[in-house]
Amino acid sequence: MTTLAIVGFGKIARDQHLPALSASDRFDLIAVASRHSSLDGVDNYPDIDTLLTEQPALEAVSLCTPPQGRYQQALAAIEAGRHVMLEKPPGITLSEVEDLARRAQRAGVTLFTSWHARAAAGVEPARDWLAERHIRKVDIEWREDVRHWHPGQQWIWEPGGLGVFDPGINALSIVTHMLPQPFFLSEATLEVPENCQSPIAARLNFTDALQTPIHADFDWRQTGPQTWRITVVTDDGTLVLDDGGSRLTIGDDLKLDGEDVEYAGLYRRFAELIERGESEVDITPFRHVADAFMLARRQRVEAFIE
Amino acid sequence: MTTLAIVGFGKIARDQHLPALSASDRFDLIAVASRHSSLDGVDNYPDIDTLLTEQPALEAVSLCTPPQGRYQQALAAIEAGRHVMLEKPPGITLSEVEDLARRAQRAGVTLFTSWHARAAAGVEPARDWLAERHIRKVDIEWREDVRHWHPGQQWIWEPGGLGVFDPGINALSIVTHMLPQPFFLSEATLEVPENCQSPIAARLNFTDALQTPIHADFDWRQTGPQTWRITVVTDDGTLVLDDGGSRLTIGDDLKLDGEDVEYAGLYRRFAELIERGESEVDITPFRHVADAFMLARRQRVEAFIE
Repeated sequence: MTTLAIVGFGKIARDQHLPALSASDRFDLIAVASRHSSLDGVDNYPDIDTLLTEQPALEAVSLCTPPQGRYQQALAAIEAGRHVMLEKPPGITLSEVEDLARRAQRAGVTLFTSWHARAAAGVEPARDWLAERHIRKVDIEWREDVRHWHPGQQWIWEPGGLGVFDPGINALSIVTHMLPQPFFLSEATLEVPENCQSPIAARLNFTDALQTPIHADFDWRQTGPQTWRITVVTDDGTLVLDDGGSRLTIGDDLKLDGEDVEYAGLYRRFAELIERGESEVDITPFRHVADAFMLARRQRVEAFIE
Repeated sequence: MTTLAIVGFGKIARDQHLPALSASDRFDLIAVASRHSSLDGVDNYPDIDTLLTEQPALEAVSLCTPPQGRYQQALAAIEAGRHVMLEKPPGITLSEVEDLARRAQRAGVTLFTSWHARAAAGVEPARDWLAERHIRKVDIEWREDVRHWHPGQQWIWEPGGLGVFDPGINALSIVTHMLPQPFFLSEATLEVPENCQSPIAARLNFTDALQTPIHADFDWRQTGPQTWRITVVTDDGTLVLDDGGSRLTIGDDLKLDGEDVEYAGLYRRFAELIERGESEVDITPFRHVADAFMLARRQRVEAFIE
């Protein structure tokens, strides 16, 4: 068992990381570092520096803090010789993540930039099936109700908060892993509420070397049923990956309507990487977001009042 | 001599590439592909596809077209087995440049993402001097008059045109090469005219693992004397790289007040890379620009009327 501490004990840590770690036979959760929260039955610290000093036998940390400030925490852990798993997005800039990757390699520790949506049950089977097909068209619909999923979270509208790309990057993490060809943005529109810095909606047109049309529609204004769907039209029928990746249909066959296995999968992967002495630093989804901010046309839309 | 064609025969090709190639003993300029222009004494073609078909013995192309559309041209050249040099910025997205890098490697041709400012006379001596000093503070001032340098160029204000980062990326290309440590953005403000998509000014705060303050001030509204200056305060005196990199002062000593050697240097480097069978694809300056677009706070400022 690898000893592990969670840093940042907010909603995602409680809802997802804690149950996954409780069920894991690879990690032993021995501590939590959090400014405002604590967990019974483990050692608790106010911040990562105290944690690293007081727990010399600690082998790994999982950073669940907001991305602003993540770099300094990851740097401290890497320089103290601990393995690091980063929640998504792995930072606030691509450049700082590149720097962490170099430092982890030099320090001989594992750095894992996790993308939880990639570990959804339908993603690997979809990837395998698509590997042998000719892809004609990809349609990504990621539409949800921000008021439901991010109540009171003002930081999502601030610089670095990414706005609708906070969920949208989940779709991008799936598609970049699932499609056999790399692709890249050709045109984009961001809708930014006039009282916010970050977009509430994005329409993205990607393509690849074969000029395959890949369209993404991210929207945070959808009430009622929520949509997290990727549709891939191929020369051999249509694949639909729905419910964020857990439901897979190919043609008329429902192949899979799976349970939520994402965080269990992430920690399994983290354990594997540590065992092999490797890192996995894939910034591809984050790079697409940066490309979108750089290339997009911006439209001001009505103020967002929560 | 390597046979070479220029693709896109606009201002930068005439002013810089042509003289550098005329003086080069490594390249033989045999053709130009340009929709609207032509050059006496070489073969002329309307576009790159015709050029590649009609000139089977052509070994290398230098792409001087605007970055929008550069990917398809570079792809065509790479797949036709030609070496490719890209003007800066190397594309409209980081992702497409990554894709070109992979494809060039697979095709066994040289891809060179050129950064002309890096080839300025003072950059290498500054880099050498800084390598052995402790850096306390970096100040980048890049302020020029857009009306003078980009008359009538509406594309610079459009998505993908980068606005003030069009000159600013020159400063970033120098600093990323010259400083011994990688650095990354922590905070930024972009000033965007209310009738434009791209910023007319940017204030950027970078830092590195040692928490060195690195500040950049890009502004396109400066009339009168123009400023292209990088000041590095070290424990052993202050280095000033001025006039875009051609004038170097360390402490009170004027070390260098050089002539313009940038494009001669770029073609010398391209020739070396071809000879060694290597590529040089450095997206670091462009990644900082994407980071800035992603992380910055935007302020609307008065309309830009040329």
